[in-house]
Amino acid sequence: MLSLISCCCSGWRRFLMRDHPDASDYVKDDCLILRCTIEVVKTRREGPGRCRIAVPPSDTGRGLKALLDSGMGTDIDFVVGDESFKAHKLILAARSPVFRAQFSGPFGDRNIKKLVVEDVDPSIFKAMLDFIYTDEFPDIGEIVGSTSPFASTNVVLHLVATADRYCLDRLRLLCESKLGEQITVDMVATTLALADQHQLHQLKAMCLKFATDPANLGGEPW
Amino acid sequence: MLSLISCCCSGWRRFLMRDHPDASDYVKDDCLILRCTIEVVKTRREGPGRCRIAVPPSDTGRGLKALLDSGMGTDIDFVVGDESFKAHKLILAARSPVFRAQFSGPFGDRNIKKLVVEDVDPSIFKAMLDFIYTDEFPDIGEIVGSTSPFASTNVVLHLVATADRYCLDRLRLLCESKLGEQITVDMVATTLALADQHQLHQLKAMCLKFATDPANLGGEPW
Repeated sequence: MLSLISCCCSGWRRFLMRDHPDASDYVKDDCLILRCTIEVVKTRREGPGRCRIAVPPSDTGRGLKALLDSGMGTDIDFVVGDESFKAHKLILAARSPVFRAQFSGPFGDRNIKKLVVEDVDPSIFKAMLDFIYTDEFPDIGEIVGSTSPFASTNVVLHLVATADRYCLDRLRLLCESKLGEQITVDMVATTLALADQHQLHQLKAMCLKFATDPANLGGEPW
Repeated sequence: MLSLISCCCSGWRRFLMRDHPDASDYVKDDCLILRCTIEVVKTRREGPGRCRIAVPPSDTGRGLKALLDSGMGTDIDFVVGDESFKAHKLILAARSPVFRAQFSGPFGDRNIKKLVVEDVDPSIFKAMLDFIYTDEFPDIGEIVGSTSPFASTNVVLHLVATADRYCLDRLRLLCESKLGEQITVDMVATTLALADQHQLHQLKAMCLKFATDPANLGGEPW
């Protein structure tokens, strides 16, 4: 008995479940009859209408990162541990509601020049700053300096906490997605506990599903 | 004789030219022999590893546009015709090398507060400003206020000239791509002349190809 039928259909793969009502129309006496259609293109048109002018993707992140790296026009200095990072209040305010409140609004100080950030590792703060400017997920391997999955998960979890602190929802989701990809039998308990602690609901659901999967209960790698 | 063979291959369409050396291996005595492979997936896994956490696309443009619309922290006022537009020198400098040179560097004036822009329509300048912040192609229909293809092409050509003036290469390419989509029998001569004038080489090639296409020489719409 067939479990699942996969076939190419108009350039796409189409799957059909064996218990689908239509399946019996395709399979008779455990035999599958296929009709193949071959298209013959008689005239080959290559008119200008078919041409497209390729446009490169958005380069805003590259321009903003170049601004950060050049240090041009920086007006705020973050002191994080024994390191300091210069940045632009304007960019930070455009990207994070927490920074916006800090640098403007009724309780903000638009003339502030220096901010001491506590309880954040400098490398994590730097990664968050890079994300603010580029909108790209940081290179975790570069921050960790190793390929250890434990160290990588740990860094991403610290990044989640920093994203939470500055209300960077997209960074938080990128971290959650990254952690979801990294679930292993060895890490699932730790990840589940931290997903619960940081209210990463989708990651928590993934951990629970992983932990209750019979394939993983046997101790096999996922 | 077959001109072109199109078939599905691993989920993709594959084309084979009749004069391709391999074609003779497939076609014998004007007959085509096909071998179809059906895949049967015996075990259906739906473990958590297959789930993905959806991450929304980049929101940098939205944040920067909100900053522009709010007027928060603007430090430059552009006077264009009888209208004026406030903006942020930092964002402009990050996105355009011309603005960067105007506001910094050996010949720039970082304390400049007002700039008079000549030979640009206010609506075109506004569209360019919006592009700088959002990195999205402006809504031409909104600028034109009509659905006339002549008016739309005219606006895009003015936008090309402004993109040239401020070295906004991506906006220039987006305009070129848009104009390429809008080529018609009625517009091809005008578009070709302007493509030549603004050195839009890809668009010029498209116009020439369009104009020499037998289907268009008969006066039929493209």
